[in-house]
Amino acid sequence: MITVLAGGTGSVKIVRGFVAQDSKVNVITNVGDNYWMYGLYVCPDIDTIVYGLADLLDQEKGWGIKKDTFNFLRQMEVFGEETWFRIGDRDAATNLLRTNMLKNGKNLSDITKWMCKKFAVTANVIPVTDNTIETRITTNKGEIHLQEYWVKYRGMDKVEGIQYIGSDKARPNPEAINAIHDADIVILAPGNPLTSIGPMLQIKGIRKELSKIKRKVVAISPLIGDNAISGPAAKYMQAAGIESNAYGLAKMYSDVCSNIIVDTKDKALVKKIQSLDMRVFETKITMKNKLAEDALANFILKQVHV
Amino acid sequence: MITVLAGGTGSVKIVRGFVAQDSKVNVITNVGDNYWMYGLYVCPDIDTIVYGLADLLDQEKGWGIKKDTFNFLRQMEVFGEETWFRIGDRDAATNLLRTNMLKNGKNLSDITKWMCKKFAVTANVIPVTDNTIETRITTNKGEIHLQEYWVKYRGMDKVEGIQYIGSDKARPNPEAINAIHDADIVILAPGNPLTSIGPMLQIKGIRKELSKIKRKVVAISPLIGDNAISGPAAKYMQAAGIESNAYGLAKMYSDVCSNIIVDTKDKALVKKIQSLDMRVFETKITMKNKLAEDALANFILKQVHV
Repeated sequence: MITVLAGGTGSVKIVRGFVAQDSKVNVITNVGDNYWMYGLYVCPDIDTIVYGLADLLDQEKGWGIKKDTFNFLRQMEVFGEETWFRIGDRDAATNLLRTNMLKNGKNLSDITKWMCKKFAVTANVIPVTDNTIETRITTNKGEIHLQEYWVKYRGMDKVEGIQYIGSDKARPNPEAINAIHDADIVILAPGNPLTSIGPMLQIKGIRKELSKIKRKVVAISPLIGDNAISGPAAKYMQAAGIESNAYGLAKMYSDVCSNIIVDTKDKALVKKIQSLDMRVFETKITMKNKLAEDALANFILKQVHV
Repeated sequence: MITVLAGGTGSVKIVRGFVAQDSKVNVITNVGDNYWMYGLYVCPDIDTIVYGLADLLDQEKGWGIKKDTFNFLRQMEVFGEETWFRIGDRDAATNLLRTNMLKNGKNLSDITKWMCKKFAVTANVIPVTDNTIETRITTNKGEIHLQEYWVKYRGMDKVEGIQYIGSDKARPNPEAINAIHDADIVILAPGNPLTSIGPMLQIKGIRKELSKIKRKVVAISPLIGDNAISGPAAKYMQAAGIESNAYGLAKMYSDVCSNIIVDTKDKALVKKIQSLDMRVFETKITMKNKLAEDALANFILKQVHV
């Protein structure tokens, strides 16, 4: 059994890769970027994973449903509402039904299971917690929700800090704890280490459970050299005082993880990472197509004996 | 000042006709066909009037926004939800914002004003009441909401009765009372007399106010001969024990209305209607285009001296 801790856009490819290799995959998903918009509860990371596994994801954008239309949003614009958060028309239905279920007392775990069933997704997608965690970014202009920072303001301002509001009180999802405990191998997907994987590691129970089995935990670097393959990972790492390369990542994960996959281009960092008592595996970590997703997942399952 | 009591599809044309003639038009709208769907509060008659006046109405269907897409609904179908009530993607935005405002304590009158403002509709659209009235149809198979009867089951079953749940306790909108009281002329639009105009006449305060100024009230027949120009008016009238022609309509309205516009084809009914102490005006009542809408409104304003 494989358990993957995943964010959204940066993580979905390798999640798909593992699901293609193994029939028993758990995906523990980040909830720190969930957001309320028009009274709808939007869960970008959960939806990206579910849509991705259902082969419905808009691959080009990395979020939303492919070929979705945006007339709901266009009408919101007519009404003078904010439209920076791009909810598609089909996507709006997902968000509305989820919100209705939440208001009727269902928890996010059950709702996510319902969603997987409706989309015929066989992987077990588990929100890391049913409590609220909110990833907030401090910039020189003030503190705002991650979605506002990255989507609304397009990540323009200097990041001065990152907070995970609610993470200290969030109860880890018992199913997530079991999925870590029972797994043959646990993967930290190449999502943003601060805003996708980070919020999950901030939950004490998750961190503790991972640290217990850290020999089985394999992180995949989202960076090549000093830069992220996509997204603002490097920027957030620098803001958090972390070296923005595979070594910085390894150091950040070293309490919960004993294995790291780095790009062959990062050969120069291998020794330094090994000094953290971590095993380092070099391969091609960019995944430009389905073949590359499968190849990376397969490499990990074949080469990294945990 | 002109005040029109209006339903949706059958009423919007003449409403548009009057708005083209006069800058001060009040439209008192039916709420008996409002319906909850996916947790959204849908107001078909209000929306048909507002979309119609904003030149956004899908003229062919007679409801919804023209050129709207239906991907929200398509996704609802994927989720196994009922989709017989056709909410378009842009329409979903209207319904969501209205529902949010209701839940935040706004009443339907204020929400409708907000909507008119957003769509640059200058007519004063007034829900007949801010309370709930539900028009329900009794068939041989049981009692169901009007929308279910007409949209979900396509009006297949025999109608045995019509109820207006809540109409006895509904407080008339004070603005509607004023709009009737202050009007130079009050029009009963050619909406369905049982399910569009009927629910409004069931509110005691509305009925009383109309009866006080019945000499100023002009009804437009939605029937030619024994048949409705469109929709199930004849069927409902028969079920209610009312003759399904302009005479039956006149009799039904005779407490609240002293003038009726009938089609020239209904010449044979004129004397019988006059015996109800009503003035009868004959003209062409079908409105196939904008010119015909204007012509009928103009005929009434010029010929019917109230």
